[in-house]
Parts: sequence; structure tokens; C-alpha cells
Amino acid sequence: MFFHTKELQYRAKPERPDPLFAKQLQEVLGGQFGEISVALQYLFQGWSVRGDGKYKDLLMDTGAEELAHIEMLATMIARLLDGAPVGDLEDAAKDPVLGAILGGMNPQHAIVSGLGAMPADSLGNRWHAGYIIASGNLLADFRANLNAESQGRLQVVRLYEATNDRGVKDMLSWLIARDTMHQNQWIAAIKELEAKENVVVPSTFPRQLEKREVSHVLFNFSEGDKSATGRWASGPSMDGEGTFQYVQNPQAYGGKPKLKPAPSYIHNTPPKDLRPNTM
Amino acid sequence: MFFHTKELQYRAKPERPDPLFAKQLQEVLGGQFGEISVALQYLFQGWSVRGDGKYKDLLMDTGAEELAHIEMLATMIARLLDGAPVGDLEDAAKDPVLGAILGGMNPQHAIVSGLGAMPADSLGNRWHAGYIIASGNLLADFRANLNAESQGRLQVVRLYEATNDRGVKDMLSWLIARDTMHQNQWIAAIKELEAKENVVVPSTFPRQLEKREVSHVLFNFSEGDKSATGRWASGPSMDGEGTFQYVQNPQAYGGKPKLKPAPSYIHNTPPKDLRPNTM
Amino acid sequence: MFFHTKELQYRAKPERPDPLFAKQLQEVLGGQFGEISVALQYLFQGWSVRGDGKYKDLLMDTGAEELAHIEMLATMIARLLDGAPVGDLEDAAKDPVLGAILGGMNPQHAIVSGLGAMPADSLGNRWHAGYIIASGNLLADFRANLNAESQGRLQVVRLYEATNDRGVKDMLSWLIARDTMHQNQWIAAIKELEAKENVVVPSTFPRQLEKREVSHVLFNFSEGDKSATGRWASGPSMDGEGTFQYVQNPQAYGGKPKLKPAPSYIHNTPPKDLRPNTM
Amino acid sequence: MFFHTKELQYRAKPERPDPLFAKQLQEVLGGQFGEISVALQYLFQGWSVRGDGKYKDLLMDTGAEELAHIEMLATMIARLLDGAPVGDLEDAAKDPVLGAILGGMNPQHAIVSGLGAMPADSLGNRWHAGYIIASGNLLADFRANLNAESQGRLQVVRLYEATNDRGVKDMLSWLIARDTMHQNQWIAAIKELEAKENVVVPSTFPRQLEKREVSHVLFNFSEGDKSATGRWASGPSMDGEGTFQYVQNPQAYGGKPKLKPAPSYIHNTPPKDLRPNTM
Amino acid sequence: MFFHTKELQYRAKPERPDPLFAKQLQEVLGGQFGEISVALQYLFQGWSVRGDGKYKDLLMDTGAEELAHIEMLATMIARLLDGAPVGDLEDAAKDPVLGAILGGMNPQHAIVSGLGAMPADSLGNRWHAGYIIASGNLLADFRANLNAESQGRLQVVRLYEATNDRGVKDMLSWLIARDTMHQNQWIAAIKELEAKENVVVPSTFPRQLEKREVSHVLFNFSEGDKSATGRWASGPSMDGEGTFQYVQNPQAYGGKPKLKPAPSYIHNTPPKDLRPNTM
Amino acid sequence: MFFHTKELQYRAKPERPDPLFAKQLQEVLGGQFGEISVALQYLFQGWSVRGDGKYKDLLMDTGAEELAHIEMLATMIARLLDGAPVGDLEDAAKDPVLGAILGGMNPQHAIVSGLGAMPADSLGNRWHAGYIIASGNLLADFRANLNAESQGRLQVVRLYEATNDRGVKDMLSWLIARDTMHQNQWIAAIKELEAKENVVVPSTFPRQLEKREVSHVLFNFSEGDKSATGRWASGPSMDGEGTFQYVQNPQAYGGKPKLKPAPSYIHNTPPKDLRPNTM
Repeated sequence: MFFHTKELQYRAKPERPDPLFAKQLQEVLGGQFGEISVALQYLFQGWSVRGDGKYKDLLMDTGAEELAHIEMLATMIARLLDGAPVGDLEDAAKDPVLGAILGGMNPQHAIVSGLGAMPADSLGNRWHAGYIIASGNLLADFRANLNAESQGRLQVVRLYEATNDRGVKDMLSWLIARDTMHQNQWIAAIKELEAKENVVVPSTFPRQLEKREVSHVLFNFSEGDKSATGRWASGPSMDGEGTFQYVQNPQAYGGKPKLKPAPSYIHNTPPKDLRPNTM
Repeated sequence: MFFHTKELQYRAKPERPDPLFAKQLQEVLGGQFGEISVALQYLFQGWSVRGDGKYKDLLMDTGAEELAHIEMLATMIARLLDGAPVGDLEDAAKDPVLGAILGGMNPQHAIVSGLGAMPADSLGNRWHAGYIIASGNLLADFRANLNAESQGRLQVVRLYEATNDRGVKDMLSWLIARDTMHQNQWIAAIKELEAKENVVVPSTFPRQLEKREVSHVLFNFSEGDKSATGRWASGPSMDGEGTFQYVQNPQAYGGKPKLKPAPSYIHNTPPKDLRPNTM
Repeated sequence: MFFHTKELQYRAKPERPDPLFAKQLQEVLGGQFGEISVALQYLFQGWSVRGDGKYKDLLMDTGAEELAHIEMLATMIARLLDGAPVGDLEDAAKDPVLGAILGGMNPQHAIVSGLGAMPADSLGNRWHAGYIIASGNLLADFRANLNAESQGRLQVVRLYEATNDRGVKDMLSWLIARDTMHQNQWIAAIKELEAKENVVVPSTFPRQLEKREVSHVLFNFSEGDKSATGRWASGPSMDGEGTFQYVQNPQAYGGKPKLKPAPSYIHNTPPKDLRPNTM
Repeated sequence: MFFHTKELQYRAKPERPDPLFAKQLQEVLGGQFGEISVALQYLFQGWSVRGDGKYKDLLMDTGAEELAHIEMLATMIARLLDGAPVGDLEDAAKDPVLGAILGGMNPQHAIVSGLGAMPADSLGNRWHAGYIIASGNLLADFRANLNAESQGRLQVVRLYEATNDRGVKDMLSWLIARDTMHQNQWIAAIKELEAKENVVVPSTFPRQLEKREVSHVLFNFSEGDKSATGRWASGPSMDGEGTFQYVQNPQAYGGKPKLKPAPSYIHNTPPKDLRPNTM
Repeated sequence: MFFHTKELQYRAKPERPDPLFAKQLQEVLGGQFGEISVALQYLFQGWSVRGDGKYKDLLMDTGAEELAHIEMLATMIARLLDGAPVGDLEDAAKDPVLGAILGGMNPQHAIVSGLGAMPADSLGNRWHAGYIIASGNLLADFRANLNAESQGRLQVVRLYEATNDRGVKDMLSWLIARDTMHQNQWIAAIKELEAKENVVVPSTFPRQLEKREVSHVLFNFSEGDKSATGRWASGPSMDGEGTFQYVQNPQAYGGKPKLKPAPSYIHNTPPKDLRPNTM
Repeated sequence: MFFHTKELQYRAKPERPDPLFAKQLQEVLGGQFGEISVALQYLFQGWSVRGDGKYKDLLMDTGAEELAHIEMLATMIARLLDGAPVGDLEDAAKDPVLGAILGGMNPQHAIVSGLGAMPADSLGNRWHAGYIIASGNLLADFRANLNAESQGRLQVVRLYEATNDRGVKDMLSWLIARDTMHQNQWIAAIKELEAKENVVVPSTFPRQLEKREVSHVLFNFSEGDKSATGRWASGPSMDGEGTFQYVQNPQAYGGKPKLKPAPSYIHNTPPKDLRPNTM
């Protein structure tokens, strides 16, 4: 169950409206690694933990905080849209600043949302749950979380560089710091689980059932052998289960496949029309 | 530039057709973490490397290999669909085995693809490039890759458990082993970059510009304090830049926001209808 | 800012696992009118209210409650998936009950989410924010809300009819009652705003600027005139601004359009190839 | 069956080309509440009416009219694109008006559609049938229709404000008037059905089966009690079945859920790694 | 403008309900090559013809007919869903026929559409306008149309094979015949345009501006030279502009690309971390 | 299996950066008819050929080449993005050229991909596999391929007209020439299959089972009879199986449908509320 308080976790007040930056800022609200993604990702992971304890609690703590970040961004975007103009674009083009604003705005911020933030990215593409990852295997999922916080912090930093509004920068510096913490916390949790299990997910599948002869082999499928010089091409493997090998000229282990004809009721190209002599 | 050879990297021959398993196996061909995702993710990351060297080569090696995995799965799925029946489902239902096959198949395998594999997941949802991650920051992206290989191997393992066809299991044991290698290689590459940079992505953003007082703090937004017992709640932070703290009762740092009315040409609810006395 | 408590708003415990019903129940979690839709719809509407007061508070109250409903459904679905089998479907088909379970389950519940609920509908289509409506005009949006609660309650009722698990029915009877309240509350809010403004949204556009001669006219574009017998075809209009009229044989007010050729650099069909004599 | 006449329902002729407005106008052709949405929504509702009579006729009348509106907008957009320039954007930027046009156009209007209208919104997102609502319950669906016409008229009005082309305004004043009628007609039909049934959809579910103690209760899940002052918080409920209540401090009725471990063949995090002492 | 008549173009009455076939039949209503696709594709092409005459008329004739086909399929699907059961699936599984029906139905046919047809395909994926093709170049577009009618007829034929309901077969035999005509008509129109222009689209681009030395060359990028035996590998080219050539060992004409580093404000991997000696 | 070489098939080097053109050029990389579409379309068709021989080889040759085109475009786009600015848009607007660049860029090129190409179109919409066509019937699919190369060449030509960068034009002239070849080759293959089978797909469905009386009839569903003057309206049909006919006034062959009420557990509008006297 969730309780909402009206105060923001951190202030979200720009120095002045800026509808163009509002459009860009949508990326970290409703993009692939925006706050909606992490909020729902952590909550769905938390609800699916089959057991109890500190991991579930950590997921719920962080998921609930990300809801507060959605709120901060929604507030900031609405303020950046304050008083955004509409009007004849061709006329406006005579005033370069106004023209740039009208031409560069997300038109749905005026037409659809009435100057409100949208659950969408910087292109206006609506958020969708295909971005979310929750597998029931926490080591896998914490890696997804670490990636999400890495991509997310990178994007917020890029946006920080793209504005000189001190109010916006102030809020973004909060989000950047929180992403620092969240990267730290997922790294800590990952290390703990890797220590308990092994670095290869899932750890519970018996290794003898996999084709072990290729479990630590790098195949050189792209001309040039610079990749042979990396840590991944020689020495003990990271999982402690073997030795890295580099294969210069990968061979095909499977033959050339030939598929059987489809039954006639499928009405594919008739087999006679594929016969060698016709080709 | 790419050259194709007709031989498969590894054999892809089931003991017998199984249209129901064909449907499930689509997940690791065209799902979020299927082979199309990793192939295109690695290739796009490789094409975007702004420089040269071993990381780019590694990405191209692995991307090209994943194309071969798409091919193996496409071949396997076509064979699992060999001679798949169509027919009146209600009639078929009288024969439970036939009924289960007809009712449980992906209908598009018959109607749309003519018994061929599809670029889709186990539900038939078409693959889309929203699954792909390529940011230009390799530490971030290698974390995405490690996650993809973790989720991918987990899914292949689950499918391995779900069949008793020895031909299918044989091929899956190949893919599981390759995912073992790919997890190992991304871990190796990540460790190397973390050693050069720092664990927090992006490493190039000056730390003094973030709101440092909350860079290592866990806020307890979910009732209960089990999360206080984790490594992430005390001790030195993973990035070596501070000390983890646990905040039992998080405070709001931002006030209660109130937005300005929209201009009249937006035709939102008129401000007078929102006035306190009317509410 | 949001705080989470570990207790559920209402119990979510089925009598026994039922992976097939788990799949169906996803509709009201992650479908077009599922709980994710209403939660985020109300929250985004609330965050966009440009002013303050009771409407904003009502939206935040209800949005926060819907988050709790997502949680209840996620919990219920996980329990319905308890111990869900995987296995060879063709073998299973020999046991009709097991075959029906394996063939009818959402395969991603096993392969992707590891027996957790997903942010998806009963077909497994991922939720997306194209479902959400938030325009800044509260009368418009409350109508969207009333519709969402009407469709939502209808779907929950249909699911109630489709199970005989007393635990599931118990939880659904809670959700049905809450949808009763939510329909009631949006009707109350709509009536209030209609009284202040007018029934036609937006009320602030000057009526003399619209083509008033067709503001209250029903055009008979479908053969047969049963629609002439409705309240909408005669008598005073609902907005009190005119009289309903029924037009038996609608005329065209615009001529037959003919478009100019495109510039040559667009490379459309050359105009000469469209000339009358060539046609 | 449908017959087409070449004349437009109303004229669709701008004073002059304006590729930037063409892009914006796409919203009401192919956006969530554009003419494609209402046309197909009404037709699908009509085709699904299980019975006959005035409601079905009304739906088919209005659905057929909306097809004519798609045609008017497609014609207008093509004309707004007349002779739209292509060319080097950086060069063009030296001429601010031309630069604004080239930079602000939907690039697909030139590259993809050859200066034709597209089945897409103002961002270029293609229309999809996830926007459509048709449930078989007409009271629910007429509420969806009333919402669609409310959102749609709001958007057309916002576009009317954004142009000073008299030809465009002329056509939009037609669409605004028709949306006035359509709001009126759905209100009339809703009132009639509410009088026959009840205001709560679906009316046919026995009230005693829902958890009646919370059927008219507002839970205060968001700090602050301004929502307690609304019509929805006290007095008789709108459905005449109870009395509104306001609950200041909502309690949890369900306990703290704990899920069972998944079977080992799912390869989730092993239960031992979730045990309290490890956390 | 469109007028609707209540009669169907052809009868749409199954011998008996069959909810499983209803689900499959959705493919040709709302799939990639279903009737919604062709109806809207032809109408959008017609509305975009920049000129007048027989091609535009043909597009509007056929587009309007396809609307009638949507209607026939919507009617047929609703009837196939007549009285479709809902109920406890596990119970139903004890009755194999009932179990197969409940397990194999599209669950949204009961929960969402109330036994109505949906604008969706056989998997339940909603139709979207990304399927539509309309470029302004009629030769290109008529090829799209010929493809659509080819894929569409193929799918209807596969469905014809999958049922033994004489009513369904009767209606499908109508649709198959109409697709025969539509393939014939687009072939006729294509031949006419090819005669006027040339077979290569667009015909208006000056051939000397393309890299003519590779305009008629087949590069052997896949091991094996069976493709060298086809008509496309030798002899005069189909456009009469050259001679087909087969290149056994394709060479790279471009060098090995190396991209410049990104500016520091993008925060990609720092160039020093990509330097050869670090790799 | 695929092998990659580091050299490009053809050079991809612009004269100078141009982030605005980079955005447009994405269309032919990741749009509906971009190189990702044709690459995966040909490969999936090839992998599904149920037999062997020249058609499969041709598909694999061409599919592999298209992978090289993705690579060329990805390289070109990254170079067009070289050093792309970020910065305060309102400030930039004072410099019209810089303002146009910042306002017109795809914001995700900076925020998301770090100046790399994206698997997306000119609007930034991510590529999805719903664009791909592979049916198992090669005549149908080669028509899809001919259409794809026609639309694709048309789009590349339009982009060629839109730039004056000689490096870009040089690369596009290569792609245009290759599309010339690919149109030629699919025409050759189509002609061969049409000669073996018939022009109507699928050729294997017995003609006597279709409703032959309407197999060659054009119905005049759109007012005006210009379409009566086309080749498709009289003379022998293209398939040699009949004579084209033109029907001036199409009749309805099916009656007016009336659907049965839904079962009560579906909770549609109650039949009594649809009764004539209530309407």
C-alpha cells in the first residue's frame, strides 16, 4: 500500500520556462531508462521476490523513491512549459527565438497534454513496459538495475550539460547523486550474490549439461585480432571454471541445413518449383 | 561487410517436430533477450565506438556470432514446425494430443509464416529495437550486455528444462555454454574499464557538481528496516568516495508544488473552477 | 513523495494455484483499463493540475490507491502461478488437465518472469502509456476516468464469472466495490464541473466561432432511420444551446478536391502519367 | 457496405501551404483522439451490437461521418504540404523562415509519404488500434465516446488557436461544431441508458456480491484532506445505493504477503540465498 | 464522403459457433495483411493522388470495398463467438472439448470485447498503421498493393484449409475470389505504369547520377554459387539499361572506418580508455 | 554463419558534420523500408525456404549485403553527428544556424546514443519486426521484396535531393544503384515463378473453390466511373482465367445481419435495453 505526501523529495523549480528543454527532459521521465522504467522495474521485481528479507525491502525502498522522482520531473516539466506559446509558425519564424521555440517544442505538449508532462520520452514516444526487466533471478535483475542506473545517470549528465538554467541544474544534481547511490547499492548487492552463487547466471544449472568445450572460448568472427589481446582471450576465466581461449578461425560444427517441404495445405512455393533443375 | 557460409555454427536438429515447443523457443530468438537483440545490440555498439581497438573488435566478433545463433534457432524452429497440422480445432479437440497441438500453437506459424520461424517472441510479439541499448559509453553498455547474457542464459536454461527432445537439448547446451562465455567476457571487460575509470558511470562527470550529501544514502521509503542490514547501508561505498548511510525517516527537501495556470488559449480547466472556495 | 507499507490493502490469496487464470487476470493488471493505467492516469492528471485544491487531492488519493491495487494483483498472480509446471507439452497432452495448463499458460510466466506477474495484459502484450489520458482539462479527463472505471469494472466482473476459486472471488469483490466508488466519485465531480461550465468540452471556446448550423444536427450516413427516433434527433440539445435536428439525406458541402502535383524532387508519379487521356 | 462520393463533406482548402501546421494537424487525423480513432471505434462498436435498433444505427451514422472527416483532414494536410521544400538544412538555416520550415517539418512527409497525409499523429507516431474501445456494453462505450469527443474537440480548439490561416480555421470550425453535436448525442444516449439501468457499469452484476462496505468510501491516500470537501465524500452516493464516506486514515485489510519459493526448474534466486540470516 | 448500407456485401454466417476459429480469423481482419490494412492503405493512397483520374478512382473503389470486407469479417467473428463459454479452466479441462475451447480462445474476446470482433490479429496484437504503405509514387504503391493482396489471399486460403464449417468456407471463397480480382487489377495497373515509365522506381531519377557500375551486379555474399544460375546473374537486365553480372568474390570499396572521439560533454568512454596500448 | 570484415562495402564519409541530415538519413537505416528491414526480411525468407537452390542462395547473398549497408549508414550517421553541439536551446536560438541545429536534431542522438546511429527512423521511432514479410511462398515474398526496393530507392532518391554534401551524395549514389539491381533481380525472379505457376498467389488453391463469378469483376464503390476506362475493367484478365467486368451499381449479396444476444455472464448491454420499443 502506498501513501503520498504533497511535498516533493527535492525542489523542482527552473529559473524560467523553456519548452524546448521540457521536451528533452522527458527522456529521463518516460524514456527507456527514465524514472517510470526504474520505478516499475523495482516494484515488479520486489512484488515477485519469492521469499522475504533485505533484497525485497531494498527493492521496495528504491521503487518508492523512484515514484518521487517521476513526480519531481513531472513538476519541473510543467513549469518549463509555463505559458508556452502556440501560434502561427510561419509568422513566428520571423522572430528567430519564438520560431525556434514553436518549431522545436513537442507539439503534443500543447495539443494533447495542455502543458503537462507526458509519460513519454524526448521524442514523444509513449513509455511502454517492454523496457522493464524482472526475471525472478535477483542476480540477473540486479545487473539489469545496475545497467539502468548507469544509462540513466549518463543521460541525466548529458542533460545537465545542455542547460544553463540553475534551477534545472540544481534538481539534476540531486538525481545524479541518487543515481550514484543506486549504482553503488546494486554493485554491493551483486557482489554479495556473486559470492554466494557464482558469477554466471543462473548458478543452479549443472555445468556438465552445457557444451563445456566452448564455455570459455572467444571465436574471431570479425577480421582482425585485436580482441585477442584482451583479458577475455587468455588466462583463467572469471567464473573460475576454466581458461579463456581464442580461436582464430572458427569452424562450423553444424552442417548445411535443408528443410523438408511444407504440407500442401500450407500453400508455400510448391517443391517442384524449388527443384535444382529449375534453379 | 559480412560474408555468409551455408553451414550452421552448431547442429539444429530436433528428434521430432513439436509445434508447441517451436512457439516457446521463439522467446530466445525474437524476445527481449533473444538472439536478434544481442546481435543488433553488439553490432550497433561496435559501429558506434568512437575510436578503434580491442573493444570494437570484441563487439564485432560477438555480434557476428549472434547472427549465427539467430540462424540456428530459425532452422530449429522450422524443423519443429515440420508438417504442423492445420484443421478444425473443435474436431481435433476430440483427440487430446492433436487438440493440444492445434490449440497451443502460435497460429501465425501456420497462417502468416508458412511454418517458418518469425522475428517474434514466445507470444508472437514482433521484435523491436526498443530492446537495444547502445549509449557510446562502453562501461554502461557492457553492463547492459552482461545483463542481456544473464537474462538470456536464464531463459535458455528454463527452455532446456521444458523439453525432453535430445536434439533440442543438444543445441540448447551449445547456446548455454556460449552465454557462459559471453557473461565471462563482459565481466572481464567491465572489470578492466572499472579499474581505469571508476565504478560509477559516467566517470567523467565532476563529483563536486552532484548533490554529494545524498550520493551514498539509502532512504527507507518502504516500511520495515530489513534493508538496513545490507552491505549498501553502512561501511565504505563501492566507489570509494564515501560511506553508506541509512536514513530511517526520509524527509521532503522540496516544498509542495503549485503550478501556474495555463494561458487561456490552451483551454484547460479555467482557473476559477479550481479556486479553493469551489473546492 | 510516496511511502510504502508492506501490508496489502486487501487480501490476495487464492484457494489454489491456477496458471491459466493467472494469465487472464493479467488483463486487469496490465491491460488498457488495468490498474497500471488508472494509477498512472490519475497521478499524471494530478501532477498536471495547474492550481491546487480538492480535484488535485482527489486524483492523488485515488492514484495512490490504484498503486495498491497493482500490488494486490501482482501478489495474487504470483500465487496463482505457484509451482506452475514446465515440461514437454506433447507428453503432457496425454494428461488432459496438465496438457491444458501447459498449453494454455502464458509461456512468458515461466520463461521470462520466473512465475511473477508481468506488466502486461491477458495476451501478454506489455502495458504502454498510449493508454493514458491527461489533457489538462479536468472535465474531459474525468470523463476519461469514468470510462476507465466503467470498462475496468466490466472486465473484473467478467473475470469474477470465470473462476470458482473463493479466494480470487473474494479479492475481485473488493476491486468491484472500489470501481463502484470510483465511478460514483467521477460522476459527482463531472456533475459539479458541468454545472460550473457547460456539458460541452472545452467550455471556453466561443460558440460563435464554430459552424453553429451543424452543432446540433444528426446526419443519416447509414441507411435506415432508426436513429431518428432517439433523444438526440429532436428536442432541445443537452447543452441548452439549440435544438436537435435529423437530416435524412446529408449533402456534401465541399467540392471534389483535386490536389496539385508535387515538386519534381519528390519523385511522385509524374503528372503526365496521371493525365486524363492516359487514364 | 460503404459507398463513396468524391465530394468532401465540407471544404478543406487552406489559404496557403504550411508544412509545419500540416505536421501539427496530423494529431486530429491519426492521434489517440483523431478521426481514425473515432471512425473505427464507432464502426467496431456498431458491428458488435448484439441486437438491432437505434443505438446501432446511431453508431453506424456517426462512424460513416467520421470517415468523411478523415478524408477532409487528409485533403487539407496534402494541401498544406503543397510544394514543401526539401534541401540542405544547414544552408536553409541562413534563411530563418525556410530554416524553420525545413527543421520543423515532419521529415516523413517528404521522405516517406511524398507530401501526402499519414495515418499518424503530430509526432509522426503511427495510429494503432490500441486506442479503440468497444466492450459490448453500450453504457460503458458511450462514456468512452463522450470522452473521445471531449478530448478531440479540445485538441481541435487548440489547433484553431495555433493558426491564422482562414481556410484552415474555416474547416476546423466545422469539425468543432460536429464535435459539439457528438458530445451532445452521446450525453443524450448515456442519460437514456443510465435511466434504464443505473449509473454503475455493468448494472447487471448483483450488488450483494461486491464488498459493499467499501462501495462508497473515499480513502485518503494522499496527505491533506481537501478531497474531503467534495460532493464525493459525503451525502447520498450517485447510484442511490449508499452514502459517501471519507476515511482519513486508511487501514490495510490484507496482511504482509510472503510468496512461496519457485520450483527449482525455474532457476530463480535459490531460496537459501534469500534466507533471513543471509540478509 | 461515405454512405453505409446495412446489408453485407456477402453473407457471413457460420454453421455453428467456434471461438477458436474466431481467434484465427482475426488475422485477416486485423493482421498485417488483413482488411483494415488494405482498406486504409488504398484510401490513403487515393487521398494522396496529386491529380485525378482512373487510378484515384480505382483506389477509392477498392478501398470502399475493403471496408465492406472488414464488416463481413467482424460479423462472422461475432457469430463464431456466439455464446462462447467462460468458466473455470481447470474444471473445464476435464471435458477435453470444453477445455480446448477455453484454453485456446483469445481471452480478450470474452474479457475485453464482450464477444465482438477486435481490430487485432490472430494473436490479439492490435492493428497499427505501420502496416500501411502510401508514398505518392503509384508504381511503388501498386507493387505494395499487389504484395498485400498476394499475402492476404495466401492467408485466407490457409484459413479455408483450417475449417470444415461450410458457412465459413462459403464466405472465405468470396474473399479469395475478390483477392484474385485485386491481384489481377494491380498487375494490370503496374504493367501500364511500367510501360509509361520504366520498371525501376522512381523512373524520374537520372540514371547517370547513380553508381552505374554496380546497377546490374549480383554480389556473392553467401558461400556457394547457386544464385549464379538465375536469370538475374546474366543476360540483359530487366530495365533494359545494362547486362547482369555475377561477382564471385565481392571486394570492399570503402576502407576501414575510424570515428572521431565525441566531445567531452557527451561523456562517452574517454578516448584514452580506447587507446591501442590499453587494448 | 557470418564473418565480418572491417572494411566497408563502399565509403561513407561526408564532407562535413550535419546533425540534421543525420536525423533524416535514419529513415533508410531504421525505417519501414530501411536497410534493417530488407536485411532481416531476406535472411528470414532465406532461412525459411523449405528446399534448397538458387532462390535461397539469392536471398542469403542479398541479405548479407544489406547488413553491409546498415554498417555504411551507421558509419555515415555517426560522422554526420561528429561534434554535434548540446547546449541551451534558447540561447542558441539567437544564432539562427546553431538554433536550427539544436532545435532540429533528434535529441536522442545526444542524450541516448552518444552521437551514434540508432536502429530507428527519421522520427526516432525504433525499428520493429512488424515491417518484415516472410510467408514461405516465394512469389508472394518476392513481390514484397520488389515493393521494399521500390519504396527504399524512392526514399534514398528523396534524401539525395535534400543534401548538397558530396560525400553523402556519393554514398547514396551507391545505394541507389544497388536498389536498381535489387529491383531488377526480384523482377527477374518474379517473372520466372509467374511462368511456372500463375500470376495469382497462391497458385495451388483450386480455382473452382473460389466464388469465380466475382474473380474478375471491378465493383464501382466510389461515385464516378473513371476507373471503368482502365485495363482492369475489360478484356482478358491478367491470369488468363477470365474476362474483366465492370459493375456500375454493386449490389449487396448478404442480408442485413442481426447478432444474437450475448450470454448474461458477459454483462453486455441487456437485450431488453436494445429492444425496438426502447429505441
